[in-house]
Amino acid sequence: MEYLHIGLAALGAGLAVIGAAIGVGKIGGSAMDAIARQPEASGKIQTAMIIAAALVEGVALFGVVAALLGVLTVPA
Amino acid sequence: MEYLHIGLAALGAGLAVIGAAIGVGKIGGSAMDAIARQPEASGKIQTAMIIAAALVEGVALFGVVAALLGVLTVPA
Amino acid sequence: MEYLHIGLAALGAGLAVIGAAIGVGKIGGSAMDAIARQPEASGKIQTAMIIAAALVEGVALFGVVAALLGVLTVPA
Repeated sequence: MEYLHIGLAALGAGLAVIGAAIGVGKIGGSAMDAIARQPEASGKIQTAMIIAAALVEGVALFGVVAALLGVLTVPA
Repeated sequence: MEYLHIGLAALGAGLAVIGAAIGVGKIGGSAMDAIARQPEASGKIQTAMIIAAALVEGVALFGVVAALLGVLTVPA
Repeated sequence: MEYLHIGLAALGAGLAVIGAAIGVGKIGGSAMDAIARQPEASGKIQTAMIIAAALVEGVALFGVVAALLGVLTVPA
């Protein structure tokens, strides 16, 4: 059981990815619908999509890095 | 079991990312729909989107940092 | 098990972030829809959005600080 924390940290990385997928998936999906409804506004929609997706991505990558540090902690 | 807290803290980081993604995803998705409905108001919509997303992002990054501090707490 | 509370406190930080994200996400998403429906009222909508979001944000930051204090409590 000494290495249990490594598995839990990997689970945490998985949760972070689930989160990122929910967020970017919702943003990207709505962007598709929006471009389909107003193709002439695709430039504005794409700009907003990238800003919103980058906000999710930033915290998700940070979360995965935190989980990775947990995975790499080997008991002395 | 001495290192168990590291895994749990990484799980906490994953939960924080799920939260950020739900929040920013909902805001960003609605912003896409809003720009599609009123492309001429895209400036105002994008400003409001960034303010709301930044509020979620702030507490999310704070939560991930708190979890990261937990991951980095190595038993003496 | 001496450090278990640190992991649980980090889990609490993650839960607080999920709560804040659900709340601010719902407020922000509805604000986007509202601005799209009445672009000329965007100033009033944004003011109300920030007030409501700040109420969620306040208690969320307090919750994360409480969790952070738990993370920082090192057994003597």
